[in-house]
Amino acid sequence: MIISLKELAEQIGAELTSGGSAEVCCVSPIAAAMAGDVTFIADKKHLRSLVDSSAAAVITSEKMDNIAMPQLIVGNVQKGLIAAIEVFAPALQRPQAGIDKTAVVADSAKISDTASVGPYCVIDAGVEIGANTVVSSFCRIGQNSVIGDNSRIDANVVIYHNCKIGSNVIIQANTTIGSTGFGYYFIDGAHRLIPHNGGVLIEDFVEIGANTCIDRAKFGQTVIGAGTKIDNLVQIAHNVQIGKCCLIAGKVGIAGSAVIGDGVVLAGGAGVGDNRRVGDGAVICANSIALSDVDAGSVVSGMPAVNLKVFQRTVIHSRRLPEYVKQIKELTKRIESLESSKDNKR
Amino acid sequence: MIISLKELAEQIGAELTSGGSAEVCCVSPIAAAMAGDVTFIADKKHLRSLVDSSAAAVITSEKMDNIAMPQLIVGNVQKGLIAAIEVFAPALQRPQAGIDKTAVVADSAKISDTASVGPYCVIDAGVEIGANTVVSSFCRIGQNSVIGDNSRIDANVVIYHNCKIGSNVIIQANTTIGSTGFGYYFIDGAHRLIPHNGGVLIEDFVEIGANTCIDRAKFGQTVIGAGTKIDNLVQIAHNVQIGKCCLIAGKVGIAGSAVIGDGVVLAGGAGVGDNRRVGDGAVICANSIALSDVDAGSVVSGMPAVNLKVFQRTVIHSRRLPEYVKQIKELTKRIESLESSKDNKR
Amino acid sequence: MIISLKELAEQIGAELTSGGSAEVCCVSPIAAAMAGDVTFIADKKHLRSLVDSSAAAVITSEKMDNIAMPQLIVGNVQKGLIAAIEVFAPALQRPQAGIDKTAVVADSAKISDTASVGPYCVIDAGVEIGANTVVSSFCRIGQNSVIGDNSRIDANVVIYHNCKIGSNVIIQANTTIGSTGFGYYFIDGAHRLIPHNGGVLIEDFVEIGANTCIDRAKFGQTVIGAGTKIDNLVQIAHNVQIGKCCLIAGKVGIAGSAVIGDGVVLAGGAGVGDNRRVGDGAVICANSIALSDVDAGSVVSGMPAVNLKVFQRTVIHSRRLPEYVKQIKELTKRIESLESSKDNKR
Repeated sequence: MIISLKELAEQIGAELTSGGSAEVCCVSPIAAAMAGDVTFIADKKHLRSLVDSSAAAVITSEKMDNIAMPQLIVGNVQKGLIAAIEVFAPALQRPQAGIDKTAVVADSAKISDTASVGPYCVIDAGVEIGANTVVSSFCRIGQNSVIGDNSRIDANVVIYHNCKIGSNVIIQANTTIGSTGFGYYFIDGAHRLIPHNGGVLIEDFVEIGANTCIDRAKFGQTVIGAGTKIDNLVQIAHNVQIGKCCLIAGKVGIAGSAVIGDGVVLAGGAGVGDNRRVGDGAVICANSIALSDVDAGSVVSGMPAVNLKVFQRTVIHSRRLPEYVKQIKELTKRIESLESSKDNKR
Repeated sequence: MIISLKELAEQIGAELTSGGSAEVCCVSPIAAAMAGDVTFIADKKHLRSLVDSSAAAVITSEKMDNIAMPQLIVGNVQKGLIAAIEVFAPALQRPQAGIDKTAVVADSAKISDTASVGPYCVIDAGVEIGANTVVSSFCRIGQNSVIGDNSRIDANVVIYHNCKIGSNVIIQANTTIGSTGFGYYFIDGAHRLIPHNGGVLIEDFVEIGANTCIDRAKFGQTVIGAGTKIDNLVQIAHNVQIGKCCLIAGKVGIAGSAVIGDGVVLAGGAGVGDNRRVGDGAVICANSIALSDVDAGSVVSGMPAVNLKVFQRTVIHSRRLPEYVKQIKELTKRIESLESSKDNKR
Repeated sequence: MIISLKELAEQIGAELTSGGSAEVCCVSPIAAAMAGDVTFIADKKHLRSLVDSSAAAVITSEKMDNIAMPQLIVGNVQKGLIAAIEVFAPALQRPQAGIDKTAVVADSAKISDTASVGPYCVIDAGVEIGANTVVSSFCRIGQNSVIGDNSRIDANVVIYHNCKIGSNVIIQANTTIGSTGFGYYFIDGAHRLIPHNGGVLIEDFVEIGANTCIDRAKFGQTVIGAGTKIDNLVQIAHNVQIGKCCLIAGKVGIAGSAVIGDGVVLAGGAGVGDNRRVGDGAVICANSIALSDVDAGSVVSGMPAVNLKVFQRTVIHSRRLPEYVKQIKELTKRIESLESSKDNKR
């Protein structure tokens, strides 16, 4: 797809400084931008690279005097960038509304006329699917589960029974929602599964990556709060309660009944112990495991996770241990020498 | 679903202290129980909360004098609780026995008349499926694999060829059994896959979560012992041997040819190095990695994992390192002072 | 399958020392080999076990005088072993060339006459599938994605749109290729997804395990270099660039835009931080997390990962911390004693 800079400026609501007739074909970061590409500057530290860039134009929130290339001036670079990327999105056929003839849909399921249920889906009794929602292929939607409007359920997603998925939700391929959690009692010499009568509640604007698992609750619901985003290969155990607008990166694991506040960030591979509470706005760094509660607004790291500064100090001092050990040995010698000289004086 | 306390007591075999005509609708933990809910007390530390609870009744193994609400007295709280939860399980249609007309089943497959093979399953040549076993939808069962009686294979599970799944086994959605393991030789400048002629043996009463992987063996079989329970997103590599009645929590990884005893607990995110042995009844704590063998009955933590007490002591002392370093500096000064005073006396 | 040693020697191109008429049925490692099994010796440390073995024959690269059993002498043990294992591979029906009648294939898809598209696959518009490639069942291949020759896509694999998969590639069950990455901007109080116009490029001879995720790029392509092998449950984020002939074991996580060189080994559970560079031939040990760049050829461990020797030294010294603390206390006492004796003398 090729359009003129003038057209692009109009489509993303930008003020264009020059070069309106130049043609552009895609958006690229500065380091990769070639002639014909539109780039963007979100951080002034990249200014020098921008000067050397052969990009056709730059999206910026401030007019820059020392830059020769045409500038697309927008109120918010990130917003302008997203708009520009959308302009150049690859052309794809949209799934058609309606139920594919190969889908197996229970009589009692209620599917909006504007929803799309793709080939080889199995939709069980009592399921409801809202307006404009797209269910891809090979999805199994269990009994009485409900999906809101404008949501997207990708291929091979399994949603068990009695789950409630909101509107504007995205669930990517091979993800499992509503599996039975890992809860056993050891009775009469065997582990006996605690039945999970509860469900899963995924609120509006939640987005979930691929091959992720969210277990149903034993009692009540496992809850993912509105606007929270979850990456690939994440494990969310039974009865976990996650607040709004959290970011939960790849390979995170959250153990049973943990309570995560609003706006929490769990970096890649982080973990939260069962029944732990993580306060609003807290950050758990990559591969760090909260075995105790985490205060709101704090940043923790390590296993077990502690305040990031404590962790960093511990790491630095640990690496220097051989040096400290040498110092202790040296001090010991010096003390021995002092002691022997004292003895000699006696 | 609403029943009287009297009916509930009968169904779970409990002795009811009072209030038989009261109606109850579900089981809830003390902290969440509302009027009309049945709760339970498994640990006396929750007694105070119970006194304040508005629950309709409590399941207990001992009659409590200071509790006003009706009591359901059972021999074993956990057993009684499981029975009560089952009474209130959501009403779901059971899959019908028989092979769905959309399933693709090889002529040579032997499927019990009482088994259920759901829509869009593909069952390959030589497969056997036992009595009352339910295979959901979009499952691929590879050539010559065998599944016992009363087992449940959920949606999108893939079982490769020559795997043996026992009776009373549960495998949840999107799990993969019998994939080829990660075994390569570097020959003539390229990694060459070692063919995996072996299979997987999953014994009776094993339960496996969602999106978990169990690789087939290079030689012989990868074995999961009877009664072992495995959570979501677990990686079990080729030729691993797992004993009976183990608990393997989410995100655990067990490397090739490791041997795990009976009754072992691997907490969330734990790992076992290749060819390592973990003795009966050992516990590997959350996110801890056994790079050496683990003695039977021991509890280990850390990376690399060591005895839990050693780990805890190491963590505590590591956090105090800045203090120790200060002490060393102070001692150095005091020694210097002693040395200089000694010199002065000379 | 049973063949004579003579036949086996011919099939794997080995020189047989004796016993050509003996019949053998499989290959087994020394510790497990029973009568009728062929074993192999790749490392002389197993020589003693070999002497005691009841195996029918041994594959070796050097004739051994002190071994009574027939020897199959090959130029390269590993190559001979792979060949022998292949001889005894279980007999399985090969999928037939052609498109299964239940597959849903877009008119514009171009599928080689010799390719096999299994039951219940959905192949979207513009897809191309090369000669002899086998696509199993329940696979969704998104618009305009291309798969080369001789590749194998197992059951329930999802490949999103605009991905390019090379020749001689294997992708195992339940793996997801081309999911949208985890990239958000926080705008006007909500996390807004950055559209991912980029794709995924998987070069020739790449092999990928089960339940693994490779995200598409925001810009350009996420790249997996030729000959690289990836295990199960691995997370590869958007815009990651992986070189040739790497080994990436189970549960590894590579964060966005990281650049991995050629011949890199990432052991089980290892991780690489976003935008980090890992040089050619580097090794990141199990469960170790590279939060900074890793030099070519280096071996690192720990969280954060440092040189393996530094890590090991740190671990050893950390375990001894209680002892060091005791030493510091003792030194303090001895200094106090020296100081008091000095004071007494005044």
